[in-house]
Amino acid sequence: MASPLTPRDQDFPRWYQDVITQAELADNGPVRGTMVIRPWGYAIWERMQAELDTRIKDAGADNAYFPLFIPESYLHKEAEHVEGFSPELAVVTHGGGKQLEEPVVVRPTSETVINSFFAKWIQSYRDLPLLINQWANVVRWELRPRLFLRTSEFLWQEGHTAHASHEDARDYALRILRDVYVSTMQDVLAVPVLTGHKTPRERFAGAIRTWTCEGMMGDGKALQMGTSHELGQNFAKAFGIQFSSESGSLEYAWQTSWGVSTRLVGALIMCHGDDAGLRLPPKLAPVQVVVLVVRDDEGVRKAAEQIAAELRGAGVRVRVDERVGTSFGRRSVEWELKGVPVRVEVGPRDLAEGRVTLVRRDTQEKRPAAVAGAAREAREALEQVQQALFSEAESARAGRTVRVGTLGEAIEAAADGFAVLPWSEVGEAGELELAASSVTVRCLQRADGGLAGSDDEPGLQAVVGRAY
Amino acid sequence: MASPLTPRDQDFPRWYQDVITQAELADNGPVRGTMVIRPWGYAIWERMQAELDTRIKDAGADNAYFPLFIPESYLHKEAEHVEGFSPELAVVTHGGGKQLEEPVVVRPTSETVINSFFAKWIQSYRDLPLLINQWANVVRWELRPRLFLRTSEFLWQEGHTAHASHEDARDYALRILRDVYVSTMQDVLAVPVLTGHKTPRERFAGAIRTWTCEGMMGDGKALQMGTSHELGQNFAKAFGIQFSSESGSLEYAWQTSWGVSTRLVGALIMCHGDDAGLRLPPKLAPVQVVVLVVRDDEGVRKAAEQIAAELRGAGVRVRVDERVGTSFGRRSVEWELKGVPVRVEVGPRDLAEGRVTLVRRDTQEKRPAAVAGAAREAREALEQVQQALFSEAESARAGRTVRVGTLGEAIEAAADGFAVLPWSEVGEAGELELAASSVTVRCLQRADGGLAGSDDEPGLQAVVGRAY
Repeated sequence: MASPLTPRDQDFPRWYQDVITQAELADNGPVRGTMVIRPWGYAIWERMQAELDTRIKDAGADNAYFPLFIPESYLHKEAEHVEGFSPELAVVTHGGGKQLEEPVVVRPTSETVINSFFAKWIQSYRDLPLLINQWANVVRWELRPRLFLRTSEFLWQEGHTAHASHEDARDYALRILRDVYVSTMQDVLAVPVLTGHKTPRERFAGAIRTWTCEGMMGDGKALQMGTSHELGQNFAKAFGIQFSSESGSLEYAWQTSWGVSTRLVGALIMCHGDDAGLRLPPKLAPVQVVVLVVRDDEGVRKAAEQIAAELRGAGVRVRVDERVGTSFGRRSVEWELKGVPVRVEVGPRDLAEGRVTLVRRDTQEKRPAAVAGAAREAREALEQVQQALFSEAESARAGRTVRVGTLGEAIEAAADGFAVLPWSEVGEAGELELAASSVTVRCLQRADGGLAGSDDEPGLQAVVGRAY
Repeated sequence: MASPLTPRDQDFPRWYQDVITQAELADNGPVRGTMVIRPWGYAIWERMQAELDTRIKDAGADNAYFPLFIPESYLHKEAEHVEGFSPELAVVTHGGGKQLEEPVVVRPTSETVINSFFAKWIQSYRDLPLLINQWANVVRWELRPRLFLRTSEFLWQEGHTAHASHEDARDYALRILRDVYVSTMQDVLAVPVLTGHKTPRERFAGAIRTWTCEGMMGDGKALQMGTSHELGQNFAKAFGIQFSSESGSLEYAWQTSWGVSTRLVGALIMCHGDDAGLRLPPKLAPVQVVVLVVRDDEGVRKAAEQIAAELRGAGVRVRVDERVGTSFGRRSVEWELKGVPVRVEVGPRDLAEGRVTLVRRDTQEKRPAAVAGAAREAREALEQVQQALFSEAESARAGRTVRVGTLGEAIEAAADGFAVLPWSEVGEAGELELAASSVTVRCLQRADGGLAGSDDEPGLQAVVGRAY
């Protein structure tokens, strides 16, 4: 059976939409901009959540839950913050059959409500650092929605922390960036990311610095995959988060916030997908190996179950596909669309010769394997696929990244990739010029790709591109 | 240090609120009726989620996610459903700075939106059963909110399934009741529950039968802890969920829905709590054993770490409390309030004699244990606490349950417990009379406590009580 997808090189946005539909990842909801995440898409998100959650807890943060509804007045407490979010708010005016005295907004992010509680909970330096994370849905009204990338409602985690010093807050924002976000994106999702900080123009509303992870998608465009913000004392002053220091003085707390969302599913599709569908990195895949019973046959079923049991015993997430009422070709295409990293095909003819067929999803390579060694070989293939997907994405990015010297060259190069040029060649005026061509500064870095120590550090380079 | 709680027998509602505050489980949110779930409360909910989620997946259901916002018109498609939920709806009238053409409601439950997708996804009997679960927040405007028990926003899971036959749907509703809900409530939360079905008056809006789990709280009142509904073909007809059967005819699907919520945290507090705070069943507790370093001492720390390491190695969730800057008394009270099942106190004097102190939270019993055997004894204590909490709750319920013959006796007995009487003595008229005294039929059962085969089965008994 041929792939039911528009070829990726022919029309990337349509290919993206086709993958989402055909792999049964998501649907549009009935209210414009909302999304139904179908079981396979949700299973991928659940695996991302699990990987992120473990790392967030290892970084010392505790999960908690704050209300969906926020009094409208809360948004106005931090001036830049309300300006940033006002155009995107959903407002509840009626509740329980009556008009509300004060309208409430559906949280676009929870800075305001969380900080109003931080002000209650924090009294002394002994209460710091306070490290809180929340898994939640948030709403930002979208005029040009696209599934997983920009939806009016999305799922995310948002971390909010308070610290006794500027330095401690910055260290924590960077710890999250590195140990939680880069680690999950690169080691699990196999998506290479550039890290750096945003220009003031691109910064989070209310932050003093925004650290970011930027991935390159299959069409050369950038996707902001996660951000970690230093909030300075902006929200602490707006919400009165003060603590008595060890020396007895009353001081404002230093804060961070950080988040990643279901947008990561979009990143995964656009970074690794090919003309046959999704390609899932094994460490993330909800099903790592699918064992296909090719035809209805007692011996075949038994061999398939045995291989599956051996894989399960080794901790592999495995599924046996025994739907022999559906053609083998159709089922192969389905598992390719869904991106399961390794297939083991068990058919009567092969089996008669003591063999099964092993298929790697990333390369589509098929090869015979002895029944007795199939589980071991499948596990080896999983390791190979994980590495290959990352290497492939890294090479693709390298091939589409050029160093340039001028804004004009940067705009040209950004047509299908990243351009890197000295930040001194860009500046605020240059950002406006780039914006006129829909190009943005994705992040600022040191010349070696490292993180800057300060905003005005000399020698910084700007990575620019078109972005989702 | 004395307990900071109002005694439970003196003022049960105030005691409940005190436990929530002092154990740092939750706070009221800024919008009336909303709730902030603090880290300790959320950790308890996360453990409940994990236990439920495993069982839900074992029952074959897949997780998915449907939108928060539902077009108002969807609610009107099933007549009883909209009547049941209209008074509680929160309505969004503005989004993205504009008035919406059609107002959207914040989901009070997701039957309507999920069934509109079931109608798209289900074509043939081969697509059935379709078994979907969602973890989400829902909103039902509350006029008399109480933390965890009735909040305008709460967290829950809602399962929605479609089947080819009435029988298959009923079997699945009962499987969820038994294998997911009763199993989690009794085996993990250690809360004994009565099961049965609701009278038509108490049934879910749109269901043909509602199965329920009813717990008895510490004041003798009932708490509905979870329900599993047979929806018949009501929603299938309203939303056009039809499938071609094996014989080729076009038929409406048979459906179920089922849910439990953060209300379970309230059940836990009210079933097991005592004058010193929460008492967590070990299988649920986020921290099963806390090892307290009594005083700052090198040897003490080392011994504490060693015991903790041994427990961790055995899979026990353990925390070491080394906050020697805070008095030992204050820390003991804190862990009692939080309900950690077993404490191991390690102090220099005991240690000099090769001993530590083991404290069971349920009985407050303290006893010495040899350092070398402390981890093993702590694990044995965990098993004992789990069993003891369940037995205690079961005895308390038995002591407050009486068999009666008339409505008058039932109302009297329901003042501080459950009354059981023949359903034939109650009926719809009797329910009205009970309601005048704030007493409701919690569930109908067979005389032996078993589940009825049909609504009009002779010999059914009604369990009545006051309820949260």
